[in-house]
Amino acid sequence: MKEILVEPHVNEIVMPDNLKVGLMIAEQRKRCSSGGCNEEYYALGFGQSPFHVPPPLVNALSENAHQGHYSAAEGILELRQAVAGFNKRHFGLDVDPERIVVGPGTKDLLNTLVGMIKGGVILPSPSWIGYRPQLNLQGKHFHTFHLKPEFDYRIQPNDLDEFASDMEGEQHMMVLNNPHNPTGIVYSRQELEKIAEVCRKHNILVLADEIYALDTYDMNNFTSMGLVYPEGTFITNGLSKDRSAGGYRLGSCIMPENAEKLAKDFKKVAATVYTNVSTPTQYAAIRAYEPNDEIEEYINITRQIHRIMGTYLSARWNQVDGVRATIPQGAFYFFADFNELSADLKRKEVATSNQLAESLISCPHHIGVVTGDANMLKPDDYGARIAFVDYDGKKAFDDYKDNPPKSELDEIEFVKKNSPMMVKSVESLKNWVNYIKSN
Amino acid sequence: MKEILVEPHVNEIVMPDNLKVGLMIAEQRKRCSSGGCNEEYYALGFGQSPFHVPPPLVNALSENAHQGHYSAAEGILELRQAVAGFNKRHFGLDVDPERIVVGPGTKDLLNTLVGMIKGGVILPSPSWIGYRPQLNLQGKHFHTFHLKPEFDYRIQPNDLDEFASDMEGEQHMMVLNNPHNPTGIVYSRQELEKIAEVCRKHNILVLADEIYALDTYDMNNFTSMGLVYPEGTFITNGLSKDRSAGGYRLGSCIMPENAEKLAKDFKKVAATVYTNVSTPTQYAAIRAYEPNDEIEEYINITRQIHRIMGTYLSARWNQVDGVRATIPQGAFYFFADFNELSADLKRKEVATSNQLAESLISCPHHIGVVTGDANMLKPDDYGARIAFVDYDGKKAFDDYKDNPPKSELDEIEFVKKNSPMMVKSVESLKNWVNYIKSN
Repeated sequence: MKEILVEPHVNEIVMPDNLKVGLMIAEQRKRCSSGGCNEEYYALGFGQSPFHVPPPLVNALSENAHQGHYSAAEGILELRQAVAGFNKRHFGLDVDPERIVVGPGTKDLLNTLVGMIKGGVILPSPSWIGYRPQLNLQGKHFHTFHLKPEFDYRIQPNDLDEFASDMEGEQHMMVLNNPHNPTGIVYSRQELEKIAEVCRKHNILVLADEIYALDTYDMNNFTSMGLVYPEGTFITNGLSKDRSAGGYRLGSCIMPENAEKLAKDFKKVAATVYTNVSTPTQYAAIRAYEPNDEIEEYINITRQIHRIMGTYLSARWNQVDGVRATIPQGAFYFFADFNELSADLKRKEVATSNQLAESLISCPHHIGVVTGDANMLKPDDYGARIAFVDYDGKKAFDDYKDNPPKSELDEIEFVKKNSPMMVKSVESLKNWVNYIKSN
Repeated sequence: MKEILVEPHVNEIVMPDNLKVGLMIAEQRKRCSSGGCNEEYYALGFGQSPFHVPPPLVNALSENAHQGHYSAAEGILELRQAVAGFNKRHFGLDVDPERIVVGPGTKDLLNTLVGMIKGGVILPSPSWIGYRPQLNLQGKHFHTFHLKPEFDYRIQPNDLDEFASDMEGEQHMMVLNNPHNPTGIVYSRQELEKIAEVCRKHNILVLADEIYALDTYDMNNFTSMGLVYPEGTFITNGLSKDRSAGGYRLGSCIMPENAEKLAKDFKKVAATVYTNVSTPTQYAAIRAYEPNDEIEEYINITRQIHRIMGTYLSARWNQVDGVRATIPQGAFYFFADFNELSADLKRKEVATSNQLAESLISCPHHIGVVTGDANMLKPDDYGARIAFVDYDGKKAFDDYKDNPPKSELDEIEFVKKNSPMMVKSVESLKNWVNYIKSN
């Protein structure tokens, strides 16, 4: 048999970079142990909620395990109703279940949506590592919109206006991730309104990836784009982050107002590609979206722990000479800018952000991060995403519940007790900077 | 806001026809009840296993409901090992787990594979209704290869040779569904060997959709294409049919021998599009693939019930004047050819197989089938797929277990007792034929 040929778009994509970090760590560990080094590693790359799935959701899946039948491609009605209620309760969104579709995770929903909607995609940079590979795989045209560190990588409406003026085509779609992976910033209502204005002017739809919405540290700061731009916004969310069930693969999308036809189009595509989201999981998810005190408490506690960890770590990284970190207001990431060290890095033959990540993970530094390159920065822009979830979530959860920190000092003690590795990573970072600056 | 534009390929597809049958029945019911008719309906359209999920699998999902973490995109190793063992045990396939990938259902696996593999697709007709919409959605080039009723729609190697000689391109892929949906026929080893010979000659890869393999009534009749054409065959299978867990969405694909790279390509695509198959479902599925007496007994019993139902119904339909039905040897379908009634049908203004289905469902006939058109026949070729799963599976299962039929007569009694609706459908079909032939 001749070699089997694959379509060229398959070769366009590489393994996702968050997974590559895991491989890099494994390889470095191997090198280390063969060199006699047994030091610890700082796993600041992979962005998975460290917490357990809330027990009511676990029980609901268990109770629905017998449901082996096929179910609605767009999601069963009872679940879409529960999702509608959840969005009303938490975000003030008044949405008919007919505008809601359920899919096998937000990632898959995004993939289907970008494949469905006509026109090019505006991808702000830095951004989540998952968007670009989907666009490459689908051969979808996209424009990289570089954000500015001096504005904490927030989209500036004037810049967007200028950027959009150069684009051709009758319709575009911009990804707006809020809270923002990788920076942890959260947009104010006023900012969103100004962005919406520009979108209206240029006929830009918004793909609002709000997967971290309920992980906003102070919910008063969160506004859904669906409230300020209902006619042009797709809102995706799911169970992966605030309910820690990433492995369940269930997410939802709210279609723009007056665009119920798109829900029907989605249903056709879903029925063609994958039939339905796991039926037991759909029935189980009803409980995760309906009012439930235990789940509300769970979301509150885990949100506070993310705040405490992120506040601690970003402040410490910011104090390190040559490193500039964003201050997260939501999610479990911040973005670190190393460009001040540019000359030293070049001297040490660290020429790209990919090499920056390799240098950070190398012995004896052992700091695993996702590179700026994977986050859509230019390759020679020295940046990295720092995930602050390197601790035992269940232990931290129980500790918080038994003994919630009451002051800033308590919170620092909470971090030291529950995440000694993250505390240590700061020392390692300082040593690495010293090494980079050394002759 | 202007109307939101979708990509043209979305408009290329329609709702899957098995789902449309459900809608047709619902609409006809409405018309009937408003006309004062309350007669029963014969649901011979939708092809879902009527049985319960085997209890060991239900329990396994229940026990793994807490597993909320992300898992391997290509399937966790323990599951792929169990799938390898299952294929060895049941089909004599000796396959390294590195050649196996797990996906969210066979449908999704097929969609990913046809998108990955270069070249046009050969789609035999009649075929399962799900292949063509995926090819249309992806804009994938395909060739319809019409099979002949006089050979019970079996692929004839000589015909394939001739057909393939007219195709351009360096690599092709043919879908080979065995047991065959919609006809229920099963290919002999000798037939497969001759087909493999032609495939080797023309560099045709085979996408062997063997989802009904374990629903072959006499397993001595089943040979996996992977045994006779290992270097060019992709084998897909899953939990949907013989283990009745269609709603779980879990299937597997065995890559061709010496093509481990394709498993890596698949992994990249899966990680890009959907992250992983539901983690609890993956852990649960280990039990459905590992040796388990209760599941083996379950597969044996359900296979016998399918045989009994299919043998009964296809024989009765064959006796109806003007109707020619295939005799199923596996799966839960047969194909009915109505072309002998062609002149009468035209006179009654039934000009296509779509209109044939509408006529069969109309009052007072009430027979729901999937049209030949959906099965890739030419629109004016009068054919329909008959699914024989219109009964209470759990009740039939328990009845079989308590009191297995010992003779042909027993089996007829078993059908009459457990599926009175299917028995009645024969009378309705006869009345419909009389109506079609009447002036």
